[in-house]
Amino acid sequence: MSIDNWRDRLFQIIYHSDTPAGKWFDLGLIACILLSVLVVMLDSVAELNQQYSHLFNMLEWGFTIIFSVEYILRIISIQKPLHYIFSFYGIVDLIAILPTYLGLFFPGTQYLLVVRSLRILRIFRILKLTQYMGEANMLVKALLGARQKVVVFLAFLLSVASIFGSFMYLIEGPENGFSSIPRGVYWAIITVTTVGYGDVAPQTPLGQGIASIMVILGYSIIAVPTGILTAEFSEQIRKELAAKGPECQVCGFTSTDKKSLYCSQCGAAHEDL
Amino acid sequence: MSIDNWRDRLFQIIYHSDTPAGKWFDLGLIACILLSVLVVMLDSVAELNQQYSHLFNMLEWGFTIIFSVEYILRIISIQKPLHYIFSFYGIVDLIAILPTYLGLFFPGTQYLLVVRSLRILRIFRILKLTQYMGEANMLVKALLGARQKVVVFLAFLLSVASIFGSFMYLIEGPENGFSSIPRGVYWAIITVTTVGYGDVAPQTPLGQGIASIMVILGYSIIAVPTGILTAEFSEQIRKELAAKGPECQVCGFTSTDKKSLYCSQCGAAHEDL
Amino acid sequence: MSIDNWRDRLFQIIYHSDTPAGKWFDLGLIACILLSVLVVMLDSVAELNQQYSHLFNMLEWGFTIIFSVEYILRIISIQKPLHYIFSFYGIVDLIAILPTYLGLFFPGTQYLLVVRSLRILRIFRILKLTQYMGEANMLVKALLGARQKVVVFLAFLLSVASIFGSFMYLIEGPENGFSSIPRGVYWAIITVTTVGYGDVAPQTPLGQGIASIMVILGYSIIAVPTGILTAEFSEQIRKELAAKGPECQVCGFTSTDKKSLYCSQCGAAHEDL
Amino acid sequence: MSIDNWRDRLFQIIYHSDTPAGKWFDLGLIACILLSVLVVMLDSVAELNQQYSHLFNMLEWGFTIIFSVEYILRIISIQKPLHYIFSFYGIVDLIAILPTYLGLFFPGTQYLLVVRSLRILRIFRILKLTQYMGEANMLVKALLGARQKVVVFLAFLLSVASIFGSFMYLIEGPENGFSSIPRGVYWAIITVTTVGYGDVAPQTPLGQGIASIMVILGYSIIAVPTGILTAEFSEQIRKELAAKGPECQVCGFTSTDKKSLYCSQCGAAHEDL
Repeated sequence: MSIDNWRDRLFQIIYHSDTPAGKWFDLGLIACILLSVLVVMLDSVAELNQQYSHLFNMLEWGFTIIFSVEYILRIISIQKPLHYIFSFYGIVDLIAILPTYLGLFFPGTQYLLVVRSLRILRIFRILKLTQYMGEANMLVKALLGARQKVVVFLAFLLSVASIFGSFMYLIEGPENGFSSIPRGVYWAIITVTTVGYGDVAPQTPLGQGIASIMVILGYSIIAVPTGILTAEFSEQIRKELAAKGPECQVCGFTSTDKKSLYCSQCGAAHEDL
Repeated sequence: MSIDNWRDRLFQIIYHSDTPAGKWFDLGLIACILLSVLVVMLDSVAELNQQYSHLFNMLEWGFTIIFSVEYILRIISIQKPLHYIFSFYGIVDLIAILPTYLGLFFPGTQYLLVVRSLRILRIFRILKLTQYMGEANMLVKALLGARQKVVVFLAFLLSVASIFGSFMYLIEGPENGFSSIPRGVYWAIITVTTVGYGDVAPQTPLGQGIASIMVILGYSIIAVPTGILTAEFSEQIRKELAAKGPECQVCGFTSTDKKSLYCSQCGAAHEDL
Repeated sequence: MSIDNWRDRLFQIIYHSDTPAGKWFDLGLIACILLSVLVVMLDSVAELNQQYSHLFNMLEWGFTIIFSVEYILRIISIQKPLHYIFSFYGIVDLIAILPTYLGLFFPGTQYLLVVRSLRILRIFRILKLTQYMGEANMLVKALLGARQKVVVFLAFLLSVASIFGSFMYLIEGPENGFSSIPRGVYWAIITVTTVGYGDVAPQTPLGQGIASIMVILGYSIIAVPTGILTAEFSEQIRKELAAKGPECQVCGFTSTDKKSLYCSQCGAAHEDL
Repeated sequence: MSIDNWRDRLFQIIYHSDTPAGKWFDLGLIACILLSVLVVMLDSVAELNQQYSHLFNMLEWGFTIIFSVEYILRIISIQKPLHYIFSFYGIVDLIAILPTYLGLFFPGTQYLLVVRSLRILRIFRILKLTQYMGEANMLVKALLGARQKVVVFLAFLLSVASIFGSFMYLIEGPENGFSSIPRGVYWAIITVTTVGYGDVAPQTPLGQGIASIMVILGYSIIAVPTGILTAEFSEQIRKELAAKGPECQVCGFTSTDKKSLYCSQCGAAHEDL
């Protein structure tokens, strides 16, 4: 029973954040994740890699041990370990520690290092537990609410890119950088989203004219997803604000003023307040 | 009569999607369209073309035969074949199969290949039949509702681009890439829409100053179409949500005023309130 | 008196568009303006200039004579000619015809040619007279309503660009293209508005880090003018829609239903309908 | 007492703008700040520096003396000088004059020059005092109201950039410009915000495909901060416009319910209705 008690406390600390210990655990974990991702990033810079190779290696092993211990504790403390292991975050947690161990047996470790940047996803699990949950929920709700509109919009965007990309391949041709239709489509996507690298750009007057038309089209349709989401956000905010005031027990009128003490239509006192 | 029955069923399957067979037909057709467009795209990549030329050719003929059969079935099953043949999608369907046959008699097939990418437009006919119809309709309605505002906005945008493009040609001149006024206008459109390839860019301090002013202007007016569409979307959503008032038991008129006590058209009291 | 009558008719045709003749005059003028701007543009293309120099010259004189006649008719037909001559559009009209005549006496005409692209502004005078007036008015009203917010926003944007531009000059220095503070500010404006030519781009890690921060800042504040204008547009649309229904003569209740025939609160018939 | 009177008037002029003298002081100060920043900028242009070195030096000393006098007057006229000295604008004011004096003793003045561009921040103190205060306040309120949503959004944006940047380093590698993960993240931020310099751009087909996906993702999520802020702005405008309900004659409470017949706080009937 004392073991169960101990498991229960551990579960509270690791999976929840409403106790002081749970909050410190979360903050510590976020710090470790951010630092470990920073080490992976700095390790990829050639000059730093040569100079601090040993330090990075040691830090990497330190973080791997911390995350391994955390992974084992998560499995131990939860009631259904398999449920956790095969959940999205369980797999991310495993992917975050595997590369260092695999690096012991296989030489090509520098490629596996990169996978560790996925650790950053774990921060969202922790955010989920905090005050930001409501905000994130509202964003997700608005996005889900606009799901079908976004699908129609993306289908339209990709069709425009495919057709314009194909015709630009015909007009400009390989000699102007449009070496294939996929490359034309890549150019069309980069252009219609207003990124505009300039690595592929139309050279002929006809191509430039068509590009101008496409760009203005893209400039007009960039407003579409914005408009959709804004309308959704406004709806969400309005719903939240539309919390009604008290209903009168005498005349049944529902006030629009939340802090009402007396009914605004018949003057009766709100008894339930 | 059994032929008519058979034609009716075919019509149901091909032109509608409310039967299971109709749904499978639509899904299969979308898959064929996407795959055939993919083949066209990959065929344009020089390395793949040389290596898999034979495979691509075979696939292309396969898709052409499928689409030809579909085209013939569409003509057979519909009551008014000419109505279909000269409709927008009828022409797109024909364009989707013609290039392969024309390629047998004429050598310049690579140009005709590109036309096949128009096949992607056919997906929108299928989307029209599905649950996405309502969403697409709302987008189209909002765009039509904002039609006149968008025309005024585009006229303004093109005027700004023409005037700034002309003056930049004067200021920068051919030695800095602004070789003609149309090229200056092309630069202005690419810049004001924030695409910014960088293939034509001002080099003189005066030109850069004017470009900065134009860019900030463009940054401010990008908000205009967004604002227009958002306001339209909000209006559309509000209209949908605006729960109707009570329906009159006497004259059947549905009020737009939720708190109606008497019918606003015939003056009868709402009995259900 | 017949002269006055003739002047009155001319005034109606030229300055208004509610008669058939006035509409045809407007359409013809728009066509002439667009064609004349097109000629100016094509004339600036080196190859076309060499080949069709004579044709362009003749067309240019043709349009100049048309616009000169129009200018004289405008002065003759209006009651207060000076009022027109010194108005904004009066000056634009004069600027549109002067360069061709000046070209007779001075050699450097190719620079004056460009000024003619200002003619495109005259299209907005004509749009003013048409059905687009309401739409254009609403756009202008919304922009004026958000005037002060836009000024605060632009002051903030330019300050951000000035400070970041200065520090990038310090960090990157002339060897990386940031040859002076004005060039740094130019870079900052091009970047924060997400145009991003790439002709000036940070090369040092520190510079790239600061650029990333500025870009994310810019990405966040691009929402500000959009949000301002959208809120204004929504307000404008709401005002238009909020036209109240009739007020009851008996109980004084104002209906929210425009087509009300009977009061929804007391059932009395609306007498004024 | 006459000294105090003089101090009081000075305080009015310097710290407030409701007297004519105070307004002139503010306008003069804005002119001085803008001119001094302009001098700093022009001084950094190599050609101008060589030619007008002496003039710029003299102007710089002129502005420094003006700002020094202003700084001393601010300290003298205020009741609690330390409160001003250690305030945000007090420090900005000091930074605005220090570099010129430090330049007398230390040689590396060109670095200190740049710091003077911070002077532009002082304009916002003056704007605060004017009619633009309300507008600026509303913008700040809307931004603060959307604070948590913006934090969630930025966390998401940076995570997307980190993960895509890491994988692009893996896919493209140092030979295509992605020399390290931080450089990949820099590329991802520049791309997802649609700036798109083109100094680092994917070269391999796989890299271009992933870039296309990221760009479309970025194009979709650019709508998120816009939507958030627009909804906030609409809320702010609506709050301002929401005309108050009647004020109670008995308890003085102003109802938020326009149609109130009785006070919602004390139950007294509204006599004026």
